[in-house]
Amino acid sequence: MTANRIKIAMLGFGNVGRAFARLLTEKQGEILDKFNVWVDVAAISTKSKGCLVNEDGINLSEALNDIEKFNHFDKKRKDYREMTSLEVAESVDYDILFELTPLQIFSGQPAIDHIKAAFKRKKHAVSANKGPLAWAYEELRDLANKNRVHFFYETTVMDGTPVFNLVDETLKFCKITEIKGILNSTTNFVLEEIAKGKAYDEVIKEGKKRGFVEEDPAMDIEGWDAAAKIAALLNVLMGANITPYDVDRKGIEDITFEQIKEAENRGNVIKLICYGGIENGKVIARVRPEEVSKSSLLASITGTTSIVSLTTDMMGTVSIVEHEPEIEQTAYGVFSDLIRVLGNM
Amino acid sequence: MTANRIKIAMLGFGNVGRAFARLLTEKQGEILDKFNVWVDVAAISTKSKGCLVNEDGINLSEALNDIEKFNHFDKKRKDYREMTSLEVAESVDYDILFELTPLQIFSGQPAIDHIKAAFKRKKHAVSANKGPLAWAYEELRDLANKNRVHFFYETTVMDGTPVFNLVDETLKFCKITEIKGILNSTTNFVLEEIAKGKAYDEVIKEGKKRGFVEEDPAMDIEGWDAAAKIAALLNVLMGANITPYDVDRKGIEDITFEQIKEAENRGNVIKLICYGGIENGKVIARVRPEEVSKSSLLASITGTTSIVSLTTDMMGTVSIVEHEPEIEQTAYGVFSDLIRVLGNM
Repeated sequence: MTANRIKIAMLGFGNVGRAFARLLTEKQGEILDKFNVWVDVAAISTKSKGCLVNEDGINLSEALNDIEKFNHFDKKRKDYREMTSLEVAESVDYDILFELTPLQIFSGQPAIDHIKAAFKRKKHAVSANKGPLAWAYEELRDLANKNRVHFFYETTVMDGTPVFNLVDETLKFCKITEIKGILNSTTNFVLEEIAKGKAYDEVIKEGKKRGFVEEDPAMDIEGWDAAAKIAALLNVLMGANITPYDVDRKGIEDITFEQIKEAENRGNVIKLICYGGIENGKVIARVRPEEVSKSSLLASITGTTSIVSLTTDMMGTVSIVEHEPEIEQTAYGVFSDLIRVLGNM
Repeated sequence: MTANRIKIAMLGFGNVGRAFARLLTEKQGEILDKFNVWVDVAAISTKSKGCLVNEDGINLSEALNDIEKFNHFDKKRKDYREMTSLEVAESVDYDILFELTPLQIFSGQPAIDHIKAAFKRKKHAVSANKGPLAWAYEELRDLANKNRVHFFYETTVMDGTPVFNLVDETLKFCKITEIKGILNSTTNFVLEEIAKGKAYDEVIKEGKKRGFVEEDPAMDIEGWDAAAKIAALLNVLMGANITPYDVDRKGIEDITFEQIKEAENRGNVIKLICYGGIENGKVIARVRPEEVSKSSLLASITGTTSIVSLTTDMMGTVSIVEHEPEIEQTAYGVFSDLIRVLGNM
């Protein structure tokens, strides 16, 4: 039996894109066995490293090599193009779009436009970028439904840990009534370091060196990343139709060593808690530092580990924990969405 | 469009069976909307409360009423029968068998024979009884595959919390390499009460009164229930092909107040930990009391809350927590398996 060919377009080729490309190469044989499908990468676009387009399939190991060695695709390659991600989304022949570009936290763009372009052409889309869910979920969902294509985004919250799939595939018929979690590892790390008596600036510096803290730490520290995540969760799982601006948000920038010590004396620790629930018939969302008992499940979530607790009408509360993820877990999230599309095609 | 009729046979009508019957009644309309299927209960068998058979559908509220009022089905009902569960499994006309009889922890019988009878007749089976998984999983799986029918059993470990479905539906392509958990709430409760300085006998007495401890507490206290659960998990998720006898098992019967205090002085608590992993290419399993750090995730699992941590080749470690379940969560587990059969028919 001749294998079917599925062509994917990858927008973005940063750490996640490259880890996904490696995983895809590794698992190609297994995909062929299970689905009788051969997955070709027809395009890889980047903002500053050039673009490759080859509808017969890009050689992924050469593409990975180029970036590793030169941090740019080799302009002499036959499949080298000067194209933007939007141009790729709009014009290349592909079956599934992978939105892997960096998050623009205050607009979700241009990722939203990339995904819209795919849906309008009746192509499936997988997003590892939470911006589209935080800023335009309902519009994108409706557009996907109208064009009868799939839209999956497991990686956007807690990497490859099943959250959206958990609800869709294993908690069928359940209504989600409340969501609570620790979803930002930078703030989790910073609070723990400050508790050790380190100065705020020193912690940020060390975090940057160790890769836990972004070049501009404000988005994490001020709770914007957490707000985008709880907005994404609430939009998808509770039909909230909100943006990160609607989240009652307070970051950890004002938390002092003294406050942490006082909490400790009360048997508590301070965590940046994301919360969504229903008040007066409306979904409300907040992100703020809260004291939780030292012996609680939430207090046990340290370092880069994260948790989300989902309260349901039929199954009580279920929590899922991701333990100290590495880039491979993010790649698995993207891969699992690919598998979900293939399984539903 | 005329709805399809699906007939189910319920073996066992204890707390779980009755809660499932109530949930089914409540959700019938939603099932009809989603699957265009009307689910009729064609048989309910019990060991000591009589049996009902009606291929046009038993009146569930009357059946529930009988048990509530008389603890026995009304022998004057037209659909009253004197039949055993095995006779029902072998002779009634049904599409899906629900094995809800009490666990026989040292054999898995007669539940195994009930399920075999269904498979031989090319009927699907849902088991809330872990015995069949702990004692005869591979044989049953092969028989189901041979007859092209479904075999689901989400409720057997952690009630309705997705564990088997989590792996099957949301961790696709992952291999499970290690399983760890706190899966027995009786021992969790007893250890916490002994830590408060209460005498062992007093704790057992109180636990029985509050419903946490079975009439014969030995199966929990000596770790047999936990051993059956880890055997079930390892058989299904890691192809272990073991029985509870193969689990290196130590219960909590010898744990003293002094040992708990000594652990506490080391910053630890004692928990009955289930573990399965690979050693020298072979799956090994154990259940034993272990000291875990007070600030750990495992230590935060108190009372009737339970947890399982799954280590995978691609997705690192993922843990799922069930919080203080009631009978409704068990009923949801059975219901979710019904939905899974309906979605795959």
